[in-house]
Amino acid sequence: MRNKPHLEEKFKKHPLVIYKLEDKVNWVNFFGNNHPIHLEIGTGRSDFILKLARENHDINFIGMDKVKEALNYPVSKAKEEGLPNIGFIYGDARNLREYFDDDRVSRIYLNFSDPWTKRKHIKRRLTHKDFLELYKKILIEGGEIHLKTDDYNFFKFSLESLSQNGFLLRNITFDLHHSKFAEDNIMTGYEKRWLSEGKGIFRLEGVFKTE
Amino acid sequence: MRNKPHLEEKFKKHPLVIYKLEDKVNWVNFFGNNHPIHLEIGTGRSDFILKLARENHDINFIGMDKVKEALNYPVSKAKEEGLPNIGFIYGDARNLREYFDDDRVSRIYLNFSDPWTKRKHIKRRLTHKDFLELYKKILIEGGEIHLKTDDYNFFKFSLESLSQNGFLLRNITFDLHHSKFAEDNIMTGYEKRWLSEGKGIFRLEGVFKTE
Repeated sequence: MRNKPHLEEKFKKHPLVIYKLEDKVNWVNFFGNNHPIHLEIGTGRSDFILKLARENHDINFIGMDKVKEALNYPVSKAKEEGLPNIGFIYGDARNLREYFDDDRVSRIYLNFSDPWTKRKHIKRRLTHKDFLELYKKILIEGGEIHLKTDDYNFFKFSLESLSQNGFLLRNITFDLHHSKFAEDNIMTGYEKRWLSEGKGIFRLEGVFKTE
Repeated sequence: MRNKPHLEEKFKKHPLVIYKLEDKVNWVNFFGNNHPIHLEIGTGRSDFILKLARENHDINFIGMDKVKEALNYPVSKAKEEGLPNIGFIYGDARNLREYFDDDRVSRIYLNFSDPWTKRKHIKRRLTHKDFLELYKKILIEGGEIHLKTDDYNFFKFSLESLSQNGFLLRNITFDLHHSKFAEDNIMTGYEKRWLSEGKGIFRLEGVFKTE
């Protein structure tokens, strides 16, 4: 993706984008209601949450990405369509707490997150304990992580990490597109390419329970 | 396996077999020491724990099976070899509490347990919540379940059930024989046949933590 410095200026003023915070965001004001929030971390082109936003008017969707060029398309698309229930954060998941109070988010989507295969990069995995601790702060009790990945080692790592850090696992499949979850599945662009090569997708849900 | 009624008589008097209890077993007396106990439920021919018993003298192994014909070979074999650290229970896992006090067992092995694929038989699966509740009673804090299976659905079910019922998952692999656990793996008879057909083995560990 080409570097597009002008996007910073665009996003700074954009009504749909949260960028460079001074205070915590008031999401009720942002969306104009108190609907549940579903957050996709690493949203990229956001085909996934754009489709969800069109189909689920009672849920507010937020796409977060640290690559501003990735956000250009979905931000323009959401504005063009006038979607009232979607917003974007141009920022890094490590700073999640700058964007969300406690108990603010009902669901987090992790779709094809970077598996960071090298051992020395383990802390960058979005299911590393350090990230899970952040998620638990912003998630409501009973809040969920929905994860899809094509990476076997990242998937195993995520199963263990979630299980060891306060999430109950459910709705696991090692072959999403030949499972009962295939019908309701919304494909990302990456997923379409992956599938076209005949490769399988792993999926899990983790539920945050404090007791 | 042919029905062998005489085995009941043999087992009733056999020094290595626990059968038809009146009181709880005193395992310290049975083994003559207080070493950690590792229990295999559905032990069958017991190649697995026989090998472990030969190689790990500081651990006491117990093989449990509800099919008496299955126990004939390992009981004879253990006696013949004079293994001091192995015993057998001819009984049903549903009655585990009749054989073990609280905090008695350090590890439970579930090797190729019947997957009970039909929904109506879900409660018979050895990783069903009801069984896990029994295991938690007899396991020490930090005690472990080590599970191997070739059955995809039973494996997924077990991942979810353990995670939802107080076990932390670790050392997961979806292809045991191409994993770092291959070297230390002790193959069961069933496993050898399965592998010879080129099929993969799933494996997990669950650790019992009360907080």
